[in-house]
Amino acid sequence: MKNKTLLMIPGPIEFDPQVLSALGAPTTSHLAPDFIEAFGQALERMRQVFLSDDGQPFVLAGSGTLAMDCAGANLVEPGDKALVVNTGYFSERFATLLQRYGAQVTQVSAPPGSRPTLDEIESALKAGSYKLVTITHVDTSTAVIADVQGIAALGRRYGALVVVDGVCSVAGEELRMSEWGVDLSLTASQKAIGVPPGLALLVAGPRAMEAFRNRKTPVLNYYADWTNWLPIMQAYEARKTGYFGTPPVNLVFALNVSLGQILAEGMQDRIARHIALSRACKAGIAALGLGQVPLRTEFAAHTLTAPRYPQGVNGADFLPRVTQAGVTLAGGLHPAIRSEYFRIGHMGVATLGDILTTLSAIESALAGCGYRFSSGAGVAAAQAIWL
Amino acid sequence: MKNKTLLMIPGPIEFDPQVLSALGAPTTSHLAPDFIEAFGQALERMRQVFLSDDGQPFVLAGSGTLAMDCAGANLVEPGDKALVVNTGYFSERFATLLQRYGAQVTQVSAPPGSRPTLDEIESALKAGSYKLVTITHVDTSTAVIADVQGIAALGRRYGALVVVDGVCSVAGEELRMSEWGVDLSLTASQKAIGVPPGLALLVAGPRAMEAFRNRKTPVLNYYADWTNWLPIMQAYEARKTGYFGTPPVNLVFALNVSLGQILAEGMQDRIARHIALSRACKAGIAALGLGQVPLRTEFAAHTLTAPRYPQGVNGADFLPRVTQAGVTLAGGLHPAIRSEYFRIGHMGVATLGDILTTLSAIESALAGCGYRFSSGAGVAAAQAIWL
Repeated sequence: MKNKTLLMIPGPIEFDPQVLSALGAPTTSHLAPDFIEAFGQALERMRQVFLSDDGQPFVLAGSGTLAMDCAGANLVEPGDKALVVNTGYFSERFATLLQRYGAQVTQVSAPPGSRPTLDEIESALKAGSYKLVTITHVDTSTAVIADVQGIAALGRRYGALVVVDGVCSVAGEELRMSEWGVDLSLTASQKAIGVPPGLALLVAGPRAMEAFRNRKTPVLNYYADWTNWLPIMQAYEARKTGYFGTPPVNLVFALNVSLGQILAEGMQDRIARHIALSRACKAGIAALGLGQVPLRTEFAAHTLTAPRYPQGVNGADFLPRVTQAGVTLAGGLHPAIRSEYFRIGHMGVATLGDILTTLSAIESALAGCGYRFSSGAGVAAAQAIWL
Repeated sequence: MKNKTLLMIPGPIEFDPQVLSALGAPTTSHLAPDFIEAFGQALERMRQVFLSDDGQPFVLAGSGTLAMDCAGANLVEPGDKALVVNTGYFSERFATLLQRYGAQVTQVSAPPGSRPTLDEIESALKAGSYKLVTITHVDTSTAVIADVQGIAALGRRYGALVVVDGVCSVAGEELRMSEWGVDLSLTASQKAIGVPPGLALLVAGPRAMEAFRNRKTPVLNYYADWTNWLPIMQAYEARKTGYFGTPPVNLVFALNVSLGQILAEGMQDRIARHIALSRACKAGIAALGLGQVPLRTEFAAHTLTAPRYPQGVNGADFLPRVTQAGVTLAGGLHPAIRSEYFRIGHMGVATLGDILTTLSAIESALAGCGYRFSSGAGVAAAQAIWL
């Protein structure tokens, strides 16, 4: 028996053995030829995975919140107006963060499980003159997916930079930076990118870089300041060296391995696989009689599922039973409904087998909690929709 | 033959196989019991390794520069006066960073290889009313070590918070936070702490935390803001969970392994070993007729050595020859003298064998460059002083 549960939370996820092997390999100098090549290649591959023709990639030691901080600190100057499309906990965070850098923030919000309509967003954009609009592609707290393509088109029409928090989406959801007119897209390594936590990843398109270059005030955050990092990223991509801070050598090697795997699968196939896994998981959950946080099918992300507990079942009883059955899931995160739901991540190297294992563990835990349902229905429904 | 050179740069260094193994192990949830225990234990061990009785440890995803940024962003409010004891490149960086957060910075400087005297520092402290004084314990660019104990006593006397950049010192040089009255000490994982790059590590003593709590203005940097991280660190140390950003799970497991190894060796023995390795290395370099950047023996750090090239030898010729002989060394970093010297790191798990291997590779490269010296003299001198 493996001394480990199957990790099906919305990050960190299960990682490929080759990625873990690169992470644990003996460290080379950050100036050694093999590292220069790996870092340079990773930067090129970032652009491909983010589906950006001409963006500037940044790979920094930090969490996903640092990636958000980079976007806010480098794009916002005191007094700038920002519109936050709010679909949950992480949208709130973006608003707080932008305010920290002096932005005047307006939010278009919706109740947990829902999302603002394009009409509501357009009205807001029309009413103000926004320097940027932020979108949480997938809010990990609610499993709600935003219509990035639609909002990006609106952002462009009204002259706002389009900034996408893709922490739970990049390399899992469809997110076409160049085609859709997204100006900045960011993520963290431990999500669909498939690398243990510790890297903040972002790609800034030409309009974002231009806004950065045209700043009249210094970036307020020293560590996140692109002034420090841009020459380093350009140097490594040109297979030269540069120094600002020591790059996280092992994580960058691991990132390059994972990006290589992602591109070998192909972005189109990878996104299709994530949609198929999501459909299987959600069919299984529905067959067990459980609802979901997203109020409509088209609001539901494909990188995770957020089932609501059925009447009589609570997380304190349920989640340890799932663990005991060999699978780790996550509890609720959105403050307003935290105790009412749980979360299943299905990103990266996840397979149908992982979904079936997870649903089986959920069935076992539900039965243990005294919930009545047709045993095996979840697993069967997932399998049926896959075939 | 091993497909890897011996990494003798001042970070990243050679890492223990058990540390690398922890880093590359399958990732568990950041809320899993084994991770909670490892993180909690690592926080406790941080305090012991930093020789702090009552400091607050912070472990964040980021580089050493983020640790410096945490110190600056959380302790400085616009208009505060700061004194920077400048011994090289990284002291300059601290000055720049503090200014970013609104500090009025005064510097006491010395030429590369030297350091300001305690009298000079006292005169500066007397003349101003400083909120904090920063000290680069070991400036990695010059291999100059500061007299932290002496400067800390002065800082206390004149009411300034004592902030130590211990990036190239913590767990290698003697640095007694509580005993010497240091208020904040910081480092990066890839130095003497012995963990691949990606963690910013700091311990803030009671006076630093009090200054933070008494701020009248918000911290200008969102990601570095202790307001976000303090509850998380307190939670994990109490073996509970908290969430702000996803902790770098694998790096934290690796950190806990390395801190355990450091404490098993014992801080006193570990520091004595670093001094002995340094003496051996420096004796070898001297026996080859090479000078060093630090102008006096007592200015020279024990975690690295910075030899000057002898006449007729240059880095572009010398360093690749060292690599070819199986050892990776670092070039110069201080802008004023960059091409005149190279750097040897001897931290963490380094052994006398590593020093001998390095000196042998240096001898081989020097001979290849046409420099004339008594062959074997470097290795012999290092061995002789050790025995």
